Amino acid sequence: MQKRIILASQSPRRKQLLDLLGFEYDIIVSNIDETLPEFIRQNSSAAQIATELARQKAFAVGKGLRQNGNNSAQEVIIIAADTIVMLDNKLYGKPNSAAEAKAMLQSLCGKTHQVCTGIAILLYNFIENKMHCLTESENSLVSFRKYDDAEIDAYINTGEPMDKAGAYALQGVGGCLVAKIDGCYTNVIGLPMPKIVKMLRDVGVQVLGQ
Amino acid sequence: MQKRIILASQSPRRKQLLDLLGFEYDIIVSNIDETLPEFIRQNSSAAQIATELARQKAFAVGKGLRQNGNNSAQEVIIIAADTIVMLDNKLYGKPNSAAEAKAMLQSLCGKTHQVCTGIAILLYNFIENKMHCLTESENSLVSFRKYDDAEIDAYINTGEPMDKAGAYALQGVGGCLVAKIDGCYTNVIGLPMPKIVKMLRDVGVQVLGQ
Repeated sequence: MQKRIILASQSPRRKQLLDLLGFEYDIIVSNIDETLPEFIRQNSSAAQIATELARQKAFAVGKGLRQNGNNSAQEVIIIAADTIVMLDNKLYGKPNSAAEAKAMLQSLCGKTHQVCTGIAILLYNFIENKMHCLTESENSLVSFRKYDDAEIDAYINTGEPMDKAGAYALQGVGGCLVAKIDGCYTNVIGLPMPKIVKMLRDVGVQVLGQ
Repeated sequence: MQKRIILASQSPRRKQLLDLLGFEYDIIVSNIDETLPEFIRQNSSAAQIATELARQKAFAVGKGLRQNGNNSAQEVIIIAADTIVMLDNKLYGKPNSAAEAKAMLQSLCGKTHQVCTGIAILLYNFIENKMHCLTESENSLVSFRKYDDAEIDAYINTGEPMDKAGAYALQGVGGCLVAKIDGCYTNVIGLPMPKIVKMLRDVGVQVLGQ
């Protein structure tokens, strides 16, 4: 059966990681409202929140395809992910200003925070109009070395922190702040590759010769 | 005093990492013989071997500058590094053939190996003709997931393993094999950035606003 693969993310880092696997896919961005009700934020683990947001993104893209018509494939595999940064039960999203980025980097300084990516892989069979969704999550711990405000300002001036959860990019200048990772490192960039490889194989996509 | 910074490495990964710090530097590659006497390989830790090789690379570049004349600066800071992969007391260098790469990847499969980078920073004062060398090393543990020969073959076909110690690149397709890192992740790519930042500051180079 003809399968179309879609990455439901506008993150250039996720695209770069998925490109490593060497298959063709399209990008369709979901525009879900990522704001969670306060009682969910308070009572859910990082994994539950990230997985739920990934699931919502995948279904939003699936529903969009149904509404707009999907003529190019009988079956669609939609890959969605959501990465969150958490320290002391507080979520760190993308900063809205340089001041917010600075406050985040001050909070994370010298401490170990959690990075959790939720993944949803949605299979959409258009012949039978059936959806089936697999979800997984991956947790890593990231320990920042100590740094001072001058260094934070210099880092913010690179422009890198502004569109990143937790206001840093592991694979960029932010890597100079990271003393230690404990866990999957592609997870910290936004897509835990060993898990993605396994999930894609589980749904019949050939990856890396298998 | 005018200082010239030199990276004594031809690794594009090290260049990419050092570029993150935003200062100007030249690349001069040392061509030292990296073969170590058997008694040293047998009786030295990964850190001792990597540090010694880094030191040799830095001094080779320093001596080359002295022989060829150095008119562009009164003081030179030479950064050299050597990264080795070790499992069960066996060193894994760059594979010389696809068969050797395959054997390495088979050995590393499903196991946790050690990646150690030795760093040498050599200060060469040309006015006083004095050299002073700082060395450090960084250790990380890398756990590979399980994979089979078909996957190894597909990975070798990407061409990526051939010029990498241990026959993989963390920042490339090889990242799909890495289940877990415990330690500094830039160390695994070839240059432990938090340590480099500290060492450069110790010798008076301004890095990231400090």
